[in-house]
Amino acid sequence: MSFGDTLARAVAARQSHVVVGLDPDPRKVGDDPDAVRRFCLGVIAAAGPACVAVKPQSAYFERLGAAGWDVMWDVSQAARDAGLVVILDAKRGDIDVSAAAYAQALLRDPVDALTVNPMMGGDAVRPFTMHARERDKGVFALVRTSNPGAGDLEDLVLDDGRPWHEAVAGLVALIGEASVGESGLSGVGAVVGATAPQHLGRLRDLMPHQPFLIPGVGAQGGRPEDLGPAFARHRAGAVVNASRSIIFAPDPRKAAEDLRATLWTLSERSAPS
Amino acid sequence: MSFGDTLARAVAARQSHVVVGLDPDPRKVGDDPDAVRRFCLGVIAAAGPACVAVKPQSAYFERLGAAGWDVMWDVSQAARDAGLVVILDAKRGDIDVSAAAYAQALLRDPVDALTVNPMMGGDAVRPFTMHARERDKGVFALVRTSNPGAGDLEDLVLDDGRPWHEAVAGLVALIGEASVGESGLSGVGAVVGATAPQHLGRLRDLMPHQPFLIPGVGAQGGRPEDLGPAFARHRAGAVVNASRSIIFAPDPRKAAEDLRATLWTLSERSAPS
Repeated sequence: MSFGDTLARAVAARQSHVVVGLDPDPRKVGDDPDAVRRFCLGVIAAAGPACVAVKPQSAYFERLGAAGWDVMWDVSQAARDAGLVVILDAKRGDIDVSAAAYAQALLRDPVDALTVNPMMGGDAVRPFTMHARERDKGVFALVRTSNPGAGDLEDLVLDDGRPWHEAVAGLVALIGEASVGESGLSGVGAVVGATAPQHLGRLRDLMPHQPFLIPGVGAQGGRPEDLGPAFARHRAGAVVNASRSIIFAPDPRKAAEDLRATLWTLSERSAPS
Repeated sequence: MSFGDTLARAVAARQSHVVVGLDPDPRKVGDDPDAVRRFCLGVIAAAGPACVAVKPQSAYFERLGAAGWDVMWDVSQAARDAGLVVILDAKRGDIDVSAAAYAQALLRDPVDALTVNPMMGGDAVRPFTMHARERDKGVFALVRTSNPGAGDLEDLVLDDGRPWHEAVAGLVALIGEASVGESGLSGVGAVVGATAPQHLGRLRDLMPHQPFLIPGVGAQGGRPEDLGPAFARHRAGAVVNASRSIIFAPDPRKAAEDLRATLWTLSERSAPS
């Protein structure tokens, strides 16, 4: 079963588009691997029931060295055991045997999908998507990110009038064709930020089968109510990440549930009937 | 002392531009962490004397899990102890606290410099360069890579006629200004592949202070004798990576020494007198 199908089923079963980002910021959680583990398990227990997926941010675990590596896998397993899809946010990008080694390192149980950086071109994406497809796992390639500086390079205008990120979108759609499942969603998705919603409709047209992983709501300023175009082809066409606005909220359960309800209503209204 | 100065001194002292890539390909070295460690230590002992730096490829160590993480640091320390500069090839790219966490994780002793992916823009590069500058360490940002698919996205032509990678070069040069040392070289360098030497001269003009990390000679087909323009501003303006063509050569010491001699002659001829 394609990861696109897995994601579509999970969204329907949990009636949620919410991905909770596991970003154990050292300024708040500290440097002790056990404290990081407890913090993440606490987030999964509190916010998990309102979510469809978790997104561990690899950087926060890598900084703890070999012990952090183990914590990342333990936390991912706990999320999987709680019925959540696990999207590891590691943004790897390399080619050939090196890319295959990254895929072996990171795109394995309990991780269901991995974020990758496509700057180096098709041969920096295909080793990941081939590895993923053989194992019914998923890949989310960066297309148009949510950070303030995203426009520096991703929005530069090409000689045919398109912003550069639309060329990335075309490459991702092409590579993802081979991974489209029965649901109509591909196992190859795209990271599309909530902070530039003016691009969402066009990117949805360019990538009709790609599930979108949308960061940038909450602390980064993106508004959930602007995300309707992401659901225009398929109700499970997007999952939406929030990190700080859930995990450091006074009540993470309520923060996740509020976002779940907003997005679930929005996707019902925006999806094809 | 800026990393640019560190690199300039090391090139002069060792009379070498050669970076040996530590790419313990699992098809040749296997999956045992101790075997990987022994292999890398053997490469350092054999080829190290002809080199100025080593470049461990993070993917090959990450695939071994927490044990691989420890091997990567042990091998890096051994290279440092042998007088080599350590450039960790991890191609990380992220923003804000996540980027700072990657920098904490990876840009620390015995590692001297880290490769980063600038696709997400200035705010995906500056957390690394700030961290590096405070510690006299270096960063090499991908600008124009050496893989066959590099042209897919990096060479797309902008509406002002420049290829996209020249805009990346401009951003890297701008960010690197604050890190230029007494040698004239910055602690912020650029990855520029040997397989498209037609770009080298222009990229040297756009990034006059950036040390280039040049992959792609040897197994990938780039020719050392085409790299003259990289040395046009400073004799230590480029270090040249070779991985498979040294580490899997019948005689790694000879392979490294031959490349060293070729490049040292070339840089003498090409550098300003």
